Amino acid sequence: MNSSIALEIGVPEAGEAERIVAIARHAGVFSPEEVDTVHELVQEHFQLGAERSGYYFIVARDERDLLGFACYGPRPLTLGTFDLYWIVVAPRVGQRGIGTTLLERVMHDVRAAGGRLLVAETSGLPDYLPAREFYDRHSFRRAARIADFYAPGDDLVLFVKRLG
Amino acid sequence: MNSSIALEIGVPEAGEAERIVAIARHAGVFSPEEVDTVHELVQEHFQLGAERSGYYFIVARDERDLLGFACYGPRPLTLGTFDLYWIVVAPRVGQRGIGTTLLERVMHDVRAAGGRLLVAETSGLPDYLPAREFYDRHSFRRAARIADFYAPGDDLVLFVKRLG
Repeated sequence: MNSSIALEIGVPEAGEAERIVAIARHAGVFSPEEVDTVHELVQEHFQLGAERSGYYFIVARDERDLLGFACYGPRPLTLGTFDLYWIVVAPRVGQRGIGTTLLERVMHDVRAAGGRLLVAETSGLPDYLPAREFYDRHSFRRAARIADFYAPGDDLVLFVKRLG
Repeated sequence: MNSSIALEIGVPEAGEAERIVAIARHAGVFSPEEVDTVHELVQEHFQLGAERSGYYFIVARDERDLLGFACYGPRPLTLGTFDLYWIVVAPRVGQRGIGTTLLERVMHDVRAAGGRLLVAETSGLPDYLPAREFYDRHSFRRAARIADFYAPGDDLVLFVKRLG
């Protein structure tokens, strides 16, 4: 019955902040420090607004619950380069194209804001294989791999997508 | 008489904040927005301290004046990766090894703080050739080049140095 889900994509309401953090926590791949970072960015987003904070959020919901979120923002000191900081879907609703739907909305909004490049950083660890495959599938280019960037044995894989 | 300069390397005093910004302004390669960023980082450094701000400064002085500065800090969410944000020498005192002396002090301090990798981002534009040659000369690896990253026609060149 997955195809019958009525998915709503939009900006989060303040009451959804905790649910966004919970999705990051339950994703199973982020460290407590990374989950804390999501919490901080959500708070800055709601306190200052997207433009002043630099953190834009997009969420996906069905009629019952928030199912995933993306966070992106302009890279300071560039003209048209945006960072895709997070794109996370609740594990139990995976494989329904929610990640793709979030990414498409991010790309649409970034283009509308004059964005030309979208940059995503992820880990080279086995746990992040789905993330790397997600970016490959959506035609991001692997621009670099930096060994031991996050920690010894934990490489950075840098993805770049040029927005048409 | 260059070799007779008595160079002092250390952390800046609060009274030197404006001089640091002036050196960035007079370097001739930074945009007003980039100079403003140096100003903001210096202010955060003095208001919060290096550890809380995340911005560490090293300066080089002779007996008369401040001659150059470097700014670096730990990359959030990594264990042992540091960003070298700026390394700038006053133009009229170039070619005296001040940049090298600043970099050596940065590498020393980063190692002492448990750093393993030092990352420097610079532009692919002709004006930044001396910067790129500086990093090449000091055995940074060119990890990536991202076309049009800073602006159309203005590429990012990403340098990484592994600290022994």
